[in-house]
Amino acid sequence: MRLKTFIVLLIIFITSTINPQIDSMRIVDLTYAFDESTIYWPTAEGFKLKVISKGLTDNGFYYSANSFCCAEHGGTHLDAPIHFYENGISSDEIPLENLIGKAVMIDLSEKCLNDRDYLIVVDDFTKWERENGNIPENAIVLLKTGFGKYWPNRTKYMGTDEKGEDAVAKLHFPGLHPEAAGWLITERQINAVGIESPSIDYGQSQHFKTHVILTENNIPIFENVANLEMLPAKNFTVIALPMKIKGGSGGPLRIIALLQE
Amino acid sequence: MRLKTFIVLLIIFITSTINPQIDSMRIVDLTYAFDESTIYWPTAEGFKLKVISKGLTDNGFYYSANSFCCAEHGGTHLDAPIHFYENGISSDEIPLENLIGKAVMIDLSEKCLNDRDYLIVVDDFTKWERENGNIPENAIVLLKTGFGKYWPNRTKYMGTDEKGEDAVAKLHFPGLHPEAAGWLITERQINAVGIESPSIDYGQSQHFKTHVILTENNIPIFENVANLEMLPAKNFTVIALPMKIKGGSGGPLRIIALLQE
Repeated sequence: MRLKTFIVLLIIFITSTINPQIDSMRIVDLTYAFDESTIYWPTAEGFKLKVISKGLTDNGFYYSANSFCCAEHGGTHLDAPIHFYENGISSDEIPLENLIGKAVMIDLSEKCLNDRDYLIVVDDFTKWERENGNIPENAIVLLKTGFGKYWPNRTKYMGTDEKGEDAVAKLHFPGLHPEAAGWLITERQINAVGIESPSIDYGQSQHFKTHVILTENNIPIFENVANLEMLPAKNFTVIALPMKIKGGSGGPLRIIALLQE
Repeated sequence: MRLKTFIVLLIIFITSTINPQIDSMRIVDLTYAFDESTIYWPTAEGFKLKVISKGLTDNGFYYSANSFCCAEHGGTHLDAPIHFYENGISSDEIPLENLIGKAVMIDLSEKCLNDRDYLIVVDDFTKWERENGNIPENAIVLLKTGFGKYWPNRTKYMGTDEKGEDAVAKLHFPGLHPEAAGWLITERQINAVGIESPSIDYGQSQHFKTHVILTENNIPIFENVANLEMLPAKNFTVIALPMKIKGGSGGPLRIIALLQE
């Protein structure tokens, strides 16, 4: 290649990269909508919308407004560190820098769909890294289980559609092994972790050790993350903005991905 | 400059621009936290948090979880087009492309703090444009009233701290004139508009014509936007992610700005 050609190509490359990247990115919504069918923990209050006004007012204009009630932990939501760690920060205190940034998607759906009680282990991460390079420092790590295809069927997604305390023992869905959570913290210094299942601990967990280790290290957790099949393995950005509940242990989360076109 | 030096400088320039720009941006939170003091419309239910669990469980781990109830329209929140327009789209249907992008901040705080009933007019926009250039197409327009300094004092922020139907006539706070809203739509093709006050229509409005004209054109509205004093007039990005309420007329909004460092 002649030097002049090389310089022209370089300049084309520059101009294609310096404009504000958000404008040239494709946005993928990783969030389930909240309605009566939204999946919550068997012991939690589900989402209830109350219509306050809907129709023409006496003053001649149309007006629609609602109120709603729900548990913090259901649908696509945040677990704040204080959820499982007494000294942890709450929903309103999580630095936005932890919730926005480069992300990776690790696909464990084959193993999880074959075994509802699958626990994601360190080997799953090192296998991914052999193909994709190390999980970058400060990454947001999204774990694909394939269980999104069952949403919002509670029996298929969680293992039971019963409610109340007795139903908890009947939960069967995949999760992240506590040792693998520790590895992400000590060996890779991640910013946050999200999973396509109702909880970062698997359904049969009794001591929620993965929650404990993550929250003790002030790592925010995203649960019931949607549409992970629309993501590549790496080279995308996640923006995860939770409802800013003062002192909250979690709450509704709007999470999106920005992909380079 | 020798050609080799030029190429080296070009390469340095490239590597300084191709990394995701979000990493080099400063993030400003434009959101008030939700708690019992959060300001809602006088007729609306305020935010109520119910503690479900807080403390050590029988299994030895700490566990904190809450549920909550609130109206869609209070605190820092979204008005979806269906709020005032029967055929408008709902909270879950707003294209994310309208909620993320370049933004401008127009400071009317001097006029608004001098006159609680001030209506922002077209002249205010053209004055801003003489100093800053035209409001860009597809911009998110944020209107600064200065009233954020009164938050969460209802009397100072809204004009009354009474509740119920009779209190509505006592509301005094600035808003956007319907003609100026129309001008933003027809002359400038904006993507969304936000205001540092409880409503895009001023407190004394009876027919909410600004809401009507914006929602009829499917323009999302952000109300009780916080911390506008931390923004420049232009050259920043806004990310406004509402809770994804199916069929919602609005809802809690987490809105942030990204500023070039």
